[in-house]
Amino acid sequence: MADTRFYDNKGPFTVQEIAGFGGADFANDRHRYEAATHISDVKTLKEAGPQDLSFFHNAKYLDDLKETKAGCVFTTADLAQFAPDETIALVIPTPYRAYAVAAHHFYPAVESEFSARDDFISPSAKIAQDVVIEVGAVIKKGVEIGAGSFVGAHTVIGRGVKIGKNCRIGQNVTLSHCLVGDHVTILPGTRIGQAGFGFFMDEKGHVSVPQLGRVVLEDRVEVGANVTIDRGTLDDTFVGFGSRIDNLVQLGHGVQLGKHCVIVSQVGISGSTRLGNFVVAAGQAGFAGHLTIGDGAQIAAKAGLMKDVATGEKVAGYPAIPVRQWHRQTVALARLANPKKKEA
Amino acid sequence: MADTRFYDNKGPFTVQEIAGFGGADFANDRHRYEAATHISDVKTLKEAGPQDLSFFHNAKYLDDLKETKAGCVFTTADLAQFAPDETIALVIPTPYRAYAVAAHHFYPAVESEFSARDDFISPSAKIAQDVVIEVGAVIKKGVEIGAGSFVGAHTVIGRGVKIGKNCRIGQNVTLSHCLVGDHVTILPGTRIGQAGFGFFMDEKGHVSVPQLGRVVLEDRVEVGANVTIDRGTLDDTFVGFGSRIDNLVQLGHGVQLGKHCVIVSQVGISGSTRLGNFVVAAGQAGFAGHLTIGDGAQIAAKAGLMKDVATGEKVAGYPAIPVRQWHRQTVALARLANPKKKEA
Amino acid sequence: MADTRFYDNKGPFTVQEIAGFGGADFANDRHRYEAATHISDVKTLKEAGPQDLSFFHNAKYLDDLKETKAGCVFTTADLAQFAPDETIALVIPTPYRAYAVAAHHFYPAVESEFSARDDFISPSAKIAQDVVIEVGAVIKKGVEIGAGSFVGAHTVIGRGVKIGKNCRIGQNVTLSHCLVGDHVTILPGTRIGQAGFGFFMDEKGHVSVPQLGRVVLEDRVEVGANVTIDRGTLDDTFVGFGSRIDNLVQLGHGVQLGKHCVIVSQVGISGSTRLGNFVVAAGQAGFAGHLTIGDGAQIAAKAGLMKDVATGEKVAGYPAIPVRQWHRQTVALARLANPKKKEA
Repeated sequence: MADTRFYDNKGPFTVQEIAGFGGADFANDRHRYEAATHISDVKTLKEAGPQDLSFFHNAKYLDDLKETKAGCVFTTADLAQFAPDETIALVIPTPYRAYAVAAHHFYPAVESEFSARDDFISPSAKIAQDVVIEVGAVIKKGVEIGAGSFVGAHTVIGRGVKIGKNCRIGQNVTLSHCLVGDHVTILPGTRIGQAGFGFFMDEKGHVSVPQLGRVVLEDRVEVGANVTIDRGTLDDTFVGFGSRIDNLVQLGHGVQLGKHCVIVSQVGISGSTRLGNFVVAAGQAGFAGHLTIGDGAQIAAKAGLMKDVATGEKVAGYPAIPVRQWHRQTVALARLANPKKKEA
Repeated sequence: MADTRFYDNKGPFTVQEIAGFGGADFANDRHRYEAATHISDVKTLKEAGPQDLSFFHNAKYLDDLKETKAGCVFTTADLAQFAPDETIALVIPTPYRAYAVAAHHFYPAVESEFSARDDFISPSAKIAQDVVIEVGAVIKKGVEIGAGSFVGAHTVIGRGVKIGKNCRIGQNVTLSHCLVGDHVTILPGTRIGQAGFGFFMDEKGHVSVPQLGRVVLEDRVEVGANVTIDRGTLDDTFVGFGSRIDNLVQLGHGVQLGKHCVIVSQVGISGSTRLGNFVVAAGQAGFAGHLTIGDGAQIAAKAGLMKDVATGEKVAGYPAIPVRQWHRQTVALARLANPKKKEA
Repeated sequence: MADTRFYDNKGPFTVQEIAGFGGADFANDRHRYEAATHISDVKTLKEAGPQDLSFFHNAKYLDDLKETKAGCVFTTADLAQFAPDETIALVIPTPYRAYAVAAHHFYPAVESEFSARDDFISPSAKIAQDVVIEVGAVIKKGVEIGAGSFVGAHTVIGRGVKIGKNCRIGQNVTLSHCLVGDHVTILPGTRIGQAGFGFFMDEKGHVSVPQLGRVVLEDRVEVGANVTIDRGTLDDTFVGFGSRIDNLVQLGHGVQLGKHCVIVSQVGISGSTRLGNFVVAAGQAGFAGHLTIGDGAQIAAKAGLMKDVATGEKVAGYPAIPVRQWHRQTVALARLANPKKKEA
């Protein structure tokens, strides 16, 4: 379930209601008899159980569909045949769009608890006694902050956020939907936990997909200034122990970083890409979504990654290739353009 | 006229005074008799009327000069001959610099209304009854906010800004000089309406050009976190219905986006570039200024656009070229650098 | 010494204590007799005197070691032989890591002076009478602000920061550890003076290096929105008279810009790189660290600089090369991939 510290679930709904939300039909007449089944949440195919709704639209991940335990999925007429017998398949040409609309019914946008007349610190927040909170910091309902931590002026800590011990959260920061470990540093102006860039692109107008995950920062993570880390759609966005993120970096929804990664300024990592441990990405590198980057990989400055990178591999260029190959190409192109120089 | 909700016009001035501001001379002795003519505002050549000052320095847009209705223009001695008879041409080697100095006289920098002892919400703001405003939000003079909207903690809404119905403006946002439609979402830390990067580059020191336009966001626009959207110099910066802008994107002064565009994280669009409808720009792409990008164009991640893109065209690379051509070049370069592999 | 407006020095320590902090040994038995010598500060090799600790680990700068006046240095067993006789060399395979640990003893992290119950403006701040400070601005201990300046709502000005006359500091800005000249403009959301991305990369976990320098902005500098400028490690980060920095730019620790530079949006400049006067860097260009860029150099959009650029040179591409050469390569590659077109 989406973390109840951050989200309120308005379900359950019946399969019939869900089909109606999405404008979808039953793939299988047999399943019509189960139209009154209650579905209580939305999840990924892997995590879903018999009470959950999911969706399937990308044949690349067919195994996930075949093995799902989901009670109900939106999918296409072609793909519905691969769903397990126990899973009620609802078919529609645009299953992700249908999912987006249904998920909005489960999790309508959360309203804020504070009006301008309330205090800046919610009485329901649990704040250890030696925490320093500067003027103007806003601490919302259910927040927890561990001993020895510091929260800078005008920083806003959203509902349910948990901050560990000995953290330093700078000024003018916005945190929501996140769990922060111990000894974590976040510099001024960084935004963590806002909704990711997730929507169904449509000729009639794009439809937002509710973003129901969280951001998890493990112990000893350090995050620079004016960074943006979006929360996950269903899975969490995750930054492993001791990783360091420089200024103006973007981590999309569902990005996962291993331990001790180093992400230099202005790098952008698109949604659902996973980095192993000790990965180094130099300045302004960009990662496409859904990639897997092995432990100890080294990504050169300005590299543009369009496919996976193996453990320990060093890549450069756009599209990114092994760094030696990139150097060879650089030399070859220089000679091609200036053949006389080659003779010299 | 620059929108009086945001700007105070200190004119009119006589043509003689304006020539003095800019250190310029009359192109035409006949026009000296009109030195007492009152000029009441500054505008683009296209929009200027008989009471307005404009400028002309780029021969590429000569038609704009020939057809202008401007009462007065700064231009060069060479180009002055193309101004209509009714337009008083003031000549100087650096007309844009002269314009910048004169425009500062019309619109000196606006001072803020709030001192630290005032309330956070101006009594002159018109705020619908069910609007939720979090603690610390600053709402300045003349602001309007429509029913059902939400303004996050520590967000600053500048003088005269208009926000429609059912908008969600996140925490720690700064809005000024902008008009926001209905159902618009803006995530935390975004800056909209600040002065653009407009100045006359000069060996003695750069001279700022007053930025007198606005930012207009149409209905259902969504803007990510830590985005920057500068207001226009004279024309408005504009984002069309339903367009979506991801985190850390930069839109320069006078950029215009059509409807339903998708601008992915860390894209930068330079001043005065215009995108049609349903344009998609992937992460870290960059656009030079003054380009025209057709409807439905698709811009690959990290592409660097130096010229116009036709309707429906897909481009990649730097300089950006049609995407198939870019793939061919990538393959050709790999073979050039590694000829043995070709034989395998 | 690190500027006492921003930092508290907890020294002196004896050489023996310092060797212990870093886990290092004496290079030279003779120096063991001086183990009780007091060392009172940390500095660069060039600036250090007999009472100062420094470090040396990069053979490229060997002259700095040979000529240092430092009382004590961490270095490697191989390099210790090049230290002057008067300098006590402490040897360890990872001297920069040892320095980092020792420097933390001299300068432990500074705690904030404000708790949530204090006023927003410190009584020790010296603010000229006609300064305008908007609601919610936080002005900490020892801040000075000159006549005619303006500080926007919810901006946080850290301990000891000095702002000159006629400056305009926008809303939601965070300034710390910086000295700001006269007539400086900073747009909303910009972060100046936070700790740079400086740490010793280690397989057991990265170790932060205390960042003890400052940011100095000379007169008439203009800085855009959501920019990040880190303070120096030991040397200052510096922006020269009249330089202009666009939105979302990153300046790393110890970057130095000359006078009248123009740095366009989303450019990133890595630590310790120095630009001369009137350098122009177009959008999304990236600079490696420790480069020297000559006066009047012009850097094309998206260029990736990996080596120095001479005075007046124009470069483009990645790796960046002279712009004419880059154009030739672009044409040569197009022909290579499409030989038929060449014949047409």
